[in-house]
Amino acid sequence: MKLENYHIESHNSELLARHEQRLSFVKSEVADAEYIIQKLVDFQIAIPSWALGTGGTRFGRFSSGGEPRNIEEKIEDIGLLHKLNGSSGAISLHIPWDTVENTAGIKALAAQNGLKFDAMNSNTFQDQQGQALSYKFGSLQHVDKAVRQQSINHNIEVIRQGVELGSNALTVWLADGSCFPGQLNFRNAFQNTLESLTEIYAALPADWKVFVEYKAFEPNFYSTTVGDWGQSLLYTSKLGPKAFTLVDLGHHLPNANIEQIVALLLMEGKLGGFHFNDSKYGDDDLTAGSMKPYQLFLIFNELVEGMDARGMIHKDDVAWMIDASHNVKDPLEDLLQSVEAIMIAYAQALSVDRKALQEAQAVSDVVRCQEILQQAFRTDLRALVAEARLRAGAALAPVEVFRKYQIRAELIKNRGNKTVATGL
Amino acid sequence: MKLENYHIESHNSELLARHEQRLSFVKSEVADAEYIIQKLVDFQIAIPSWALGTGGTRFGRFSSGGEPRNIEEKIEDIGLLHKLNGSSGAISLHIPWDTVENTAGIKALAAQNGLKFDAMNSNTFQDQQGQALSYKFGSLQHVDKAVRQQSINHNIEVIRQGVELGSNALTVWLADGSCFPGQLNFRNAFQNTLESLTEIYAALPADWKVFVEYKAFEPNFYSTTVGDWGQSLLYTSKLGPKAFTLVDLGHHLPNANIEQIVALLLMEGKLGGFHFNDSKYGDDDLTAGSMKPYQLFLIFNELVEGMDARGMIHKDDVAWMIDASHNVKDPLEDLLQSVEAIMIAYAQALSVDRKALQEAQAVSDVVRCQEILQQAFRTDLRALVAEARLRAGAALAPVEVFRKYQIRAELIKNRGNKTVATGL
Amino acid sequence: MKLENYHIESHNSELLARHEQRLSFVKSEVADAEYIIQKLVDFQIAIPSWALGTGGTRFGRFSSGGEPRNIEEKIEDIGLLHKLNGSSGAISLHIPWDTVENTAGIKALAAQNGLKFDAMNSNTFQDQQGQALSYKFGSLQHVDKAVRQQSINHNIEVIRQGVELGSNALTVWLADGSCFPGQLNFRNAFQNTLESLTEIYAALPADWKVFVEYKAFEPNFYSTTVGDWGQSLLYTSKLGPKAFTLVDLGHHLPNANIEQIVALLLMEGKLGGFHFNDSKYGDDDLTAGSMKPYQLFLIFNELVEGMDARGMIHKDDVAWMIDASHNVKDPLEDLLQSVEAIMIAYAQALSVDRKALQEAQAVSDVVRCQEILQQAFRTDLRALVAEARLRAGAALAPVEVFRKYQIRAELIKNRGNKTVATGL
Amino acid sequence: MKLENYHIESHNSELLARHEQRLSFVKSEVADAEYIIQKLVDFQIAIPSWALGTGGTRFGRFSSGGEPRNIEEKIEDIGLLHKLNGSSGAISLHIPWDTVENTAGIKALAAQNGLKFDAMNSNTFQDQQGQALSYKFGSLQHVDKAVRQQSINHNIEVIRQGVELGSNALTVWLADGSCFPGQLNFRNAFQNTLESLTEIYAALPADWKVFVEYKAFEPNFYSTTVGDWGQSLLYTSKLGPKAFTLVDLGHHLPNANIEQIVALLLMEGKLGGFHFNDSKYGDDDLTAGSMKPYQLFLIFNELVEGMDARGMIHKDDVAWMIDASHNVKDPLEDLLQSVEAIMIAYAQALSVDRKALQEAQAVSDVVRCQEILQQAFRTDLRALVAEARLRAGAALAPVEVFRKYQIRAELIKNRGNKTVATGL
Repeated sequence: MKLENYHIESHNSELLARHEQRLSFVKSEVADAEYIIQKLVDFQIAIPSWALGTGGTRFGRFSSGGEPRNIEEKIEDIGLLHKLNGSSGAISLHIPWDTVENTAGIKALAAQNGLKFDAMNSNTFQDQQGQALSYKFGSLQHVDKAVRQQSINHNIEVIRQGVELGSNALTVWLADGSCFPGQLNFRNAFQNTLESLTEIYAALPADWKVFVEYKAFEPNFYSTTVGDWGQSLLYTSKLGPKAFTLVDLGHHLPNANIEQIVALLLMEGKLGGFHFNDSKYGDDDLTAGSMKPYQLFLIFNELVEGMDARGMIHKDDVAWMIDASHNVKDPLEDLLQSVEAIMIAYAQALSVDRKALQEAQAVSDVVRCQEILQQAFRTDLRALVAEARLRAGAALAPVEVFRKYQIRAELIKNRGNKTVATGL
Repeated sequence: MKLENYHIESHNSELLARHEQRLSFVKSEVADAEYIIQKLVDFQIAIPSWALGTGGTRFGRFSSGGEPRNIEEKIEDIGLLHKLNGSSGAISLHIPWDTVENTAGIKALAAQNGLKFDAMNSNTFQDQQGQALSYKFGSLQHVDKAVRQQSINHNIEVIRQGVELGSNALTVWLADGSCFPGQLNFRNAFQNTLESLTEIYAALPADWKVFVEYKAFEPNFYSTTVGDWGQSLLYTSKLGPKAFTLVDLGHHLPNANIEQIVALLLMEGKLGGFHFNDSKYGDDDLTAGSMKPYQLFLIFNELVEGMDARGMIHKDDVAWMIDASHNVKDPLEDLLQSVEAIMIAYAQALSVDRKALQEAQAVSDVVRCQEILQQAFRTDLRALVAEARLRAGAALAPVEVFRKYQIRAELIKNRGNKTVATGL
Repeated sequence: MKLENYHIESHNSELLARHEQRLSFVKSEVADAEYIIQKLVDFQIAIPSWALGTGGTRFGRFSSGGEPRNIEEKIEDIGLLHKLNGSSGAISLHIPWDTVENTAGIKALAAQNGLKFDAMNSNTFQDQQGQALSYKFGSLQHVDKAVRQQSINHNIEVIRQGVELGSNALTVWLADGSCFPGQLNFRNAFQNTLESLTEIYAALPADWKVFVEYKAFEPNFYSTTVGDWGQSLLYTSKLGPKAFTLVDLGHHLPNANIEQIVALLLMEGKLGGFHFNDSKYGDDDLTAGSMKPYQLFLIFNELVEGMDARGMIHKDDVAWMIDASHNVKDPLEDLLQSVEAIMIAYAQALSVDRKALQEAQAVSDVVRCQEILQQAFRTDLRALVAEARLRAGAALAPVEVFRKYQIRAELIKNRGNKTVATGL
Repeated sequence: MKLENYHIESHNSELLARHEQRLSFVKSEVADAEYIIQKLVDFQIAIPSWALGTGGTRFGRFSSGGEPRNIEEKIEDIGLLHKLNGSSGAISLHIPWDTVENTAGIKALAAQNGLKFDAMNSNTFQDQQGQALSYKFGSLQHVDKAVRQQSINHNIEVIRQGVELGSNALTVWLADGSCFPGQLNFRNAFQNTLESLTEIYAALPADWKVFVEYKAFEPNFYSTTVGDWGQSLLYTSKLGPKAFTLVDLGHHLPNANIEQIVALLLMEGKLGGFHFNDSKYGDDDLTAGSMKPYQLFLIFNELVEGMDARGMIHKDDVAWMIDASHNVKDPLEDLLQSVEAIMIAYAQALSVDRKALQEAQAVSDVVRCQEILQQAFRTDLRALVAEARLRAGAALAPVEVFRKYQIRAELIKNRGNKTVATGL
């Protein structure tokens, strides 16, 4: 079956009365409910093409069946998500996994599904079939200029493909680094990487951005050449105004204060985008909000505050994306849960009484500061998020709809049980 | 070419004069040099069959060529290592990757190479082709008794194969755990696992041991059902006298004091074995001694002290094994480096002035305690390790011999450049 | 001024209408609201005597004024808290800081304030004026039997004082450990500690318990002799049925899964008590629920589930206590915030749909498991907690009352601005 | 007794024969022994005035007796250290603890002891007796401009005192930060701090530097306003060419790659100085080299390589200082151990075969890179360090001399057993 609007409407109508009661109560609790709902309606989170299949670890992978087999089916899946939650109106592609031949057709398909093309992702952390030189010892950092050139060319090709599709940003995540002391000269690795990025930067169209993602460790286990926000900021500052830092929530050392990093990057005008997920130990790539929902709120609290302060009121100023790996959940259900958690955190951050917070901060009233933040966090704002979906024509309870109409079973019937999504 | 004894002898003869000078100097520095050398000659470290190929991460794998294609070639590789260093006289198999059909032939081949069969490893963290039930949600812990029974049966089959080969221990590493809060009832998971282990325990021959390995996280990222030494000890205590805890150096939370854990397990008579490797962030599986050589020494310091105290003087009382993953090194060179680092740490621990240490501890002379340990660690004992190799008929400089005779090139010529070792 | 009941009633009456609306809404959202309210009314959390003054770090301390100067004023402060929130009806003393001379008078004063005497705390981590032997190198673990005996005697004296006051438990937190490799023989330290604890255990009255607290690090920075739950469980198992493990939320290595530890200790019948606080880096001793409120809920989720499973339905089966350090907040306001956060987490855990959770777990429906837990966590149950306070005659909004009647100013007026609470 | 040169000479003469043998052997192992010895002779490490007394934790402090009671006795102690090891020829003062009234006399005393005045340290993390405004909620970051101004004035006063003494650098370590989410506006805190530092910077004499130290956590437990190297670099880049980042080895999140940070700061020309110590968990302030000696070597490896690359060959280009806390050791013995460990690490780094390393790196020969570094680390170079001391007229075995002549006993006799060094 294809999920039609009337399926959603039918489901919504069953839940509507209870929803209205909840919404009415929340509106009595929150000052700017209508303002928040409108911000939620406008908010869109890109879905990466590689998140639609079951993830794995180095120890193995347990498929869940019905995974998309090509870019058309990936667009179809994200279209489904967007129909369900009204907030997933963009797709982020990964090249070469998603290299498109029929550009016009793909663009038309995306448009039919209401999807834009978000940041393009290059891949120099794996060797592809038939690739001339290996990335075993790095790509943009490599001691061999020929390998660096190959990596540069690949990134430029990704830009080219992105231009055709209508994207306007390139995300560079480098696995580059080292596994053992002595393997790298850190300064040479940095300089080589900077030189390579400079060439890629030069190939950016005028309206494009490049996002330089950082990560503390994995797959290299001694050093990473873009290892933390400080290193990323060094690169993006040296590159120029089109270069920005991208924050992935799972890419930090234990106990890092990510919300402070976010605030400082905003202050420097260098926060480019986000990869949402959650984690307990490392880059665990769990569902957003599943482990540390308060931290997710605190991050959004900085985003709301910092973007207001900089006049970055337009939703396009930061690229929002999920980057998770669904090892034990249905990937589509997982994405619905992630988007929901992100929307809730955004709603909570929007509902913070900023004036009261500023006043409490101004007199170092720490107890009151905490009360204000926790008031926003503990108030149940899920009805606002549901209302935003309702107004967007989407489902009040997306996961329930997904299950009620047995969409996974349908996908398995159509695509088979042993499909492997291209990519990871 | 096949590496012959005369190749090693020829190489040794070139290095001999300088070696003798170093040995002579070390003997003037260390009290019990001859005793230490003999202990080093006797010391054997098992090589796991899966460490002979290039490792990978969830992001990819970069092969190095010439990897063994079957168990015969794995035995050949370990035979080569043992010929080079005289300390790798055992192989640890992984079932089903190494399931043997021609048992007699394999035993003969191992004997020709001077190898014993160390602990057998079961695998319930991956689904195998044609497997009836999936381990996606665990094996010995599974909520479904049928999955637990399948896992139990597999472990019993591994014991059976091990008995045929002459092994006398089973290592159980469980990936069992959960990725999200709520997924598991922790107590039920523990009880199911205990019940399953009890059935496996009942199938152990009289002279066998079972090692229960613990790991803090990965591939599950919220909880692990044998997550730390305390949990492993609970299981092995409840199971009985043939059950022991196995320590893998990379399986701890950040900053854990592993040497203290080792001491306490020895105290309880429950230290069964070791998986050596090194790490900076998690289960990085780097070359032993490559990151924290002082920690490796401190662990051996506890082993030497604790085994003496318990009369565990025989080398067979603890199972020593390497468990590393060679992502950016030649696997055989990496193993030579690991064994060398382990031997050095053992030599350092043997050279600690225990009487002086006890005296300093007895008066809480912390400065002196540190001086005594660091005296052992900072003294260069590599000539003792080399001498042990020389006496065992092995190479003074194993990596040099491996390179001089271009053994990797030979392996690639014979086996091809794109081979994939069975297993990870 | 003294806070009188009519002050609270007057305040409550202002908030009552809005409270009733919220309560009514929550009752429409939660199945067992009345059951939960009653459990909350019954729930009592002990306040440690040392938490009433401003805390400090090794770098300094910034007093907040009006701190209690003796045990009478400490009881007065906790009486005030209990009057405000109805849930702080117990005090936990620390000897020798709180050594009582006039036992009868102190007992009467506590009774007037509605307070019981919770677990007594011994102190062998500091040297007291005039103490014969130093604890610089440990107490119960010390290499010198005379120091061990002094520590044992102190603990027995603490039991004696506790018996007089009507307490029935002893908490032993040991700073014992080492700062440098080699300083301690780990096994000897364990055996000495066990021997010492055995003597203390023998001095326990029939109806007493002893809690053995563990801590990963600080004030010793290499090893701690009761370093983790596994070590504590070893001690308490060897000691006997009156010995239990005590969990302090801040005493773990980074990323530890504390809720799993809680579940396993409950399974073993060895969970004795709790020290609530919150932390980001180490034993930060922050307000409960201020940093990781979801983790606090997950811990309570295990407590509710595990205690039900064991028939531990009586509230006295586990000792609940706050152990925080209020460096930048008013200590009394901080304690009100901590108790509130704990009550909320308890309410959330009580509201989990356990039957649904078990069903979802039974089919490994991970998505659903998460939905069930997050439904309980995200529903705003603060009105239930407030209602429990109302029924207990306490304040709907304790911090507001504390501020409205300027209680801190009054305390400063009475006690002075430069007081130092005995103890830390 | 006063330690005289003939005491040291007498002791050296006893050890000389054995030393000569060791030196001779090392010279046969290391290429540039004489070059290394000369570098070691030239190398000086500043001793902070606060490291001469026993340290403590928030839980207590155990004095060791004979601690210096004033700045004269502190200079005396460092003079003693310098006499013993020839490498401690500088003192780093802490204001107001070490505020000097008789400047000329103090300068003369320092000169007599062969000591220079290294970086001056300001203190805005504690309130001093009679201070007008409190630093409870920060100093240079404070929301109240008056508190910021007080902190600025204090730093300018420290510069003034330093100018009189002949120092030429100011180290600013800020405890500024927050303990709870919401307490601070991160961006305002940064901007306030930057503004304050700018005023201090303006007060620097032409030949002065300011070092901005960073620290991840403690005494604030949620955020620190100069929290990592990236933040420090932001400040020092905005301040100007006299501002540099200072690295304290204990001020990082778990598992941070400090040597990479050092390399990058050198690359940017912004590495100003070092605080040496060692740690396992946090800012444990343990003896340098006592926990992770290989990491200490790797850091020096970057320093030697990076300073060569930048032509920073003069020893004054980076400020070297110890910053440890001697809770369970004699402070003077601890400092001797720290300096020894630092000298060894420096010697090891100097002995790295850089040409071979560059060649191995140029072909990504990871195995060989490791062998080269470990060859330098495992070779016992202590005789080179001892020889450097001998040539400087200091002791071959400083700790032994300290003990042989019972210097601590003498200090206790002169100064008493209960002295408390000014400061921490």
